[in-house]
Amino acid sequence: MTANTTDDATITTPADREILVERIFDAPRERVWAAFSRLEQLVQWWSGGDLFAVERWEFRKGGHYRFLDRYDGEINGFEGRFREITPQERIVQTFEWDGMPGHVAVDAVTFTDLGDGRTKVTTLRQFHTPEERDGMLHSGMAKGMNASYRALDTLLTRSA
Amino acid sequence: MTANTTDDATITTPADREILVERIFDAPRERVWAAFSRLEQLVQWWSGGDLFAVERWEFRKGGHYRFLDRYDGEINGFEGRFREITPQERIVQTFEWDGMPGHVAVDAVTFTDLGDGRTKVTTLRQFHTPEERDGMLHSGMAKGMNASYRALDTLLTRSA
Repeated sequence: MTANTTDDATITTPADREILVERIFDAPRERVWAAFSRLEQLVQWWSGGDLFAVERWEFRKGGHYRFLDRYDGEINGFEGRFREITPQERIVQTFEWDGMPGHVAVDAVTFTDLGDGRTKVTTLRQFHTPEERDGMLHSGMAKGMNASYRALDTLLTRSA
Repeated sequence: MTANTTDDATITTPADREILVERIFDAPRERVWAAFSRLEQLVQWWSGGDLFAVERWEFRKGGHYRFLDRYDGEINGFEGRFREITPQERIVQTFEWDGMPGHVAVDAVTFTDLGDGRTKVTTLRQFHTPEERDGMLHSGMAKGMNASYRALDTLLTRSA
């Protein structure tokens, strides 16, 4: 079986307010979980590894996060709050971009052990409205997500 | 025409994720707007005037707010972010209670000059899911909202 680590993520729209992103990583679930839950690893791949600053990181139910990234010379803020954290299995958190303040999406991220040393990461992003969902789809989300996931591939390879 | 300032708010559910709250205040629109937009007035009626602390108040698009109130001896946190502020007319902001972190509602508050010295305040609260909406309806929201609005009546009378 060949590893799919350089593939793009599969992006679908199961409902009019939802985006579903699926991606397989060539690493065991504990490793992938560590890359999502430990800040020193997260900063190496989030935003394609081009993070500018971490203003807040409270990885617990009810905790907040806030990142600044740099893209085309501009600084952008992203923030949210953790709704649910089930170690190795699931993270539910909100997501909000400074450019559209008050437009909040909810991400449910699920980690599935594929049993062959690979891990599937599924992100169901639910928006408040179909218009917000469509705006995100047209914003270059796929490109940004794939860049981040490729940086995550690199991190997982390095630490294997 | 008699003023309806001691009436309860009208609460309806126009859609399965929405709650609509309508209330008439016996004061001109500029006065009601000031009571919503100026912190020193807001703290006198929000949470029935029983606010414990203001941790954050940035009344501008993209700004955050965070309040602590005291209810039955317990401290509760509430927070959100301003999406839109149109002076005298409309405030759109998110609303989140610490007890259910990551469950975010969006409030669109509209101020209508009734032309007779009274002002109608309409709040359309949109939730992510029907379940969140129903949870809020059963949480004693009407009681809390009416207590706050009666404290607002008092403030408006005092400053008339």
